[in-house]
Amino acid sequence: MSGYEQLSISELKEQLAQLEGVYEGYKSRNLKLDMSRGKPCPEQLDLSMGMLDLVSSKDTLKASDGMDCRNYGGVDGLPEMKVLFARLLEVDTGEIMIGGSSSLNLMHDMIARAMLLGVYGSEVPWGKLPVVKFLCPSPGYDRHFAICELFQIEMIVIDMQHDGPDMDTIERLVREDEAIKGIWCVPKYSNPDGITYSDEVVDRLAAMPTKAADFRIIWDDAYIVHHLTDQPDLLKNMLAACKKAGNPDRALMFASTSKITFSGSGIAAMAASAANLGFIRKQLSIQTIGPDKINQLRHIRFLPDLEHIQVHMAKQAALIRPKFDSVLSKLEAELGDKHLATWNKPNGGYFISLNTMDGCAKAVVSKAAEAGVTLTQAGATYPYGQDPRDRNIRIAPTYPTLPELESAIDVLCLCVQMVSISKLLSEKP
Amino acid sequence: MSGYEQLSISELKEQLAQLEGVYEGYKSRNLKLDMSRGKPCPEQLDLSMGMLDLVSSKDTLKASDGMDCRNYGGVDGLPEMKVLFARLLEVDTGEIMIGGSSSLNLMHDMIARAMLLGVYGSEVPWGKLPVVKFLCPSPGYDRHFAICELFQIEMIVIDMQHDGPDMDTIERLVREDEAIKGIWCVPKYSNPDGITYSDEVVDRLAAMPTKAADFRIIWDDAYIVHHLTDQPDLLKNMLAACKKAGNPDRALMFASTSKITFSGSGIAAMAASAANLGFIRKQLSIQTIGPDKINQLRHIRFLPDLEHIQVHMAKQAALIRPKFDSVLSKLEAELGDKHLATWNKPNGGYFISLNTMDGCAKAVVSKAAEAGVTLTQAGATYPYGQDPRDRNIRIAPTYPTLPELESAIDVLCLCVQMVSISKLLSEKP
Repeated sequence: MSGYEQLSISELKEQLAQLEGVYEGYKSRNLKLDMSRGKPCPEQLDLSMGMLDLVSSKDTLKASDGMDCRNYGGVDGLPEMKVLFARLLEVDTGEIMIGGSSSLNLMHDMIARAMLLGVYGSEVPWGKLPVVKFLCPSPGYDRHFAICELFQIEMIVIDMQHDGPDMDTIERLVREDEAIKGIWCVPKYSNPDGITYSDEVVDRLAAMPTKAADFRIIWDDAYIVHHLTDQPDLLKNMLAACKKAGNPDRALMFASTSKITFSGSGIAAMAASAANLGFIRKQLSIQTIGPDKINQLRHIRFLPDLEHIQVHMAKQAALIRPKFDSVLSKLEAELGDKHLATWNKPNGGYFISLNTMDGCAKAVVSKAAEAGVTLTQAGATYPYGQDPRDRNIRIAPTYPTLPELESAIDVLCLCVQMVSISKLLSEKP
Repeated sequence: MSGYEQLSISELKEQLAQLEGVYEGYKSRNLKLDMSRGKPCPEQLDLSMGMLDLVSSKDTLKASDGMDCRNYGGVDGLPEMKVLFARLLEVDTGEIMIGGSSSLNLMHDMIARAMLLGVYGSEVPWGKLPVVKFLCPSPGYDRHFAICELFQIEMIVIDMQHDGPDMDTIERLVREDEAIKGIWCVPKYSNPDGITYSDEVVDRLAAMPTKAADFRIIWDDAYIVHHLTDQPDLLKNMLAACKKAGNPDRALMFASTSKITFSGSGIAAMAASAANLGFIRKQLSIQTIGPDKINQLRHIRFLPDLEHIQVHMAKQAALIRPKFDSVLSKLEAELGDKHLATWNKPNGGYFISLNTMDGCAKAVVSKAAEAGVTLTQAGATYPYGQDPRDRNIRIAPTYPTLPELESAIDVLCLCVQMVSISKLLSEKP
């Protein structure tokens, strides 16, 4: 079967009627399927249950430096946890700071502090400037954009290309506009596109001249070890690239074990130049006496090194790869030759990004919701919730069971076709 | 022996020489004793070790509402944890929000958000005003003052009296000055004085007219169940008092289990009007997807209700009361009749507050340090680290062992006498 655009009005109407019949069938099943957020499924979480037994009342709970993990202290983490994250992020241990359980929280606080006090090297706090702008490669992570919106940081949409954000535009903008203070990046298996930034993009981001002397790259390496295949994407190290380019303080890197161990109870970390960390540590020591060290101990015993993490993540991949495969094969079977939508085939991460014809995403998401299938709100992957082409839909396959997922994708594909035909019909002369 | 002030110069000199001999003896012992922070001792922490076994790989880790505590969600805490803190703080469950592990962190973030975005009812963010001031009952908690200093909030010293801060001064200031946006309070077993605010103070704080419509009382109930005797102090409920006085949004109450279970790995909570919490919850949901729910589960299983907390805290008191008693009896024995210093006898909390003669605290702390006894820096209990009378010394008896503590107090008493005599000698005609 060829693309719908070649069909006549009556053929389209016939097709639509058929699809509506199937859709009504799904509606009568009273489905309640949620694919809105990138949450691990229970089976993924089960893989970390053994960690809970590694700290017990029989322990001494001492860190490698002798610190009693039950008491106050250790504002930026246990030495052994710094070593682990330093290896994970390929930086020196002096370039690592361990936070609480949420890297989102670290990033939020980073921006909040920049607004109130500036970053290392700022002449004035960002919040004292008439306007602060951030570059937002889009589609992107809605929670990044929400932080900017909260603090009234103006967001500039940057198109995502196959190897990262549109660097020509970025270089032009940051060279001219002093108000642009940073850029949000999910550089590996990006949310939602699953794109990994190329070496060239990393190098250009690291080296580009910026009008703002205190420009920062928020490098959210959320899916650093979250591969789906045996040929994982490789990402060039941003901190090293910045150092080499003579901009050692430009990159702020973030990672966490939220999608390695437990989503609400992991360990988050930040990597940056020693100068950046020194500046932040002073402020941090006023915010808190220290993060939960017992949970760090639990984690380091469960995942003492990179090899353990790799083995653990391979088990996670084995659980969720069939879900990604199922979504992809269904999309191919239902939409493959109809020229109604395109989608990515990620090597890792948590999402499949689907682009409908322009102007259809909102209607598709709303129609799916009517049939009991909750997708991420259309537009959510763009700043201010506004997808300029109204076409991007983020599919989060990890949480539902395989049968649930299959039903949900069936409904989604139906809705894409129905909305697309309606659009084609409305455009026919 | 009567007060030193009645001795002649030669008698004083003789006394000083004697004391110096003893002091040199201590110095030669190369002591290394730390009484600088209010940290629980290992034996106190041991009391909570059983908690670590209450969440294990055999569990389902479900909250009372069925939520999987291992996954994302639950931005303001488990329902059962809200119930516990609601009982502890004597408020409704709708007036409770559970945070991470640190109430200091909650307070810091509260002030940071107020600076960036204002509080519920603010016309402008505090940070947009030319000046923001806070009232600081002093001596007080140095970490409160550090938050103000970080955000350049001007601190106004308010004298502590026997039943709380000087209310006459407070009422006069807040009535006239719109820039005064709040007050720091440790209302029960205050840090460092061990004073509990009287009902009258609570009512006056709740009812006083303030020029700033968005004035806030930061009510840090850090020692809410931290009694040292069987006749605990009673504190009137501030949230209820504010409600009754027609200022329902004035109070922001904080508490944590940091000094109940584990100091770095406890559960923190905030209590406030539903309007305040609604306002904060929106911002909080952008800062984090939620705090560590597994640790909440662990805590609620260990301390399911107030009765368990009371029993647990009685065990803590049994461990640290002898330390307080030892300090007090040594102070009495060494300084009791010499008119050189005064000190409080707290019914709870973590400190004994010692006031030397004016102008002696810094010298005493420095002399003690020379002999290997680290005390909280003199001045730390005042805004900007400046004790206007240079007389307050905070003694933290909980962490050292009893023999360590005895040596440390011996040294302290020696230093108080030596410094006082030097001062008396310098003032003699």
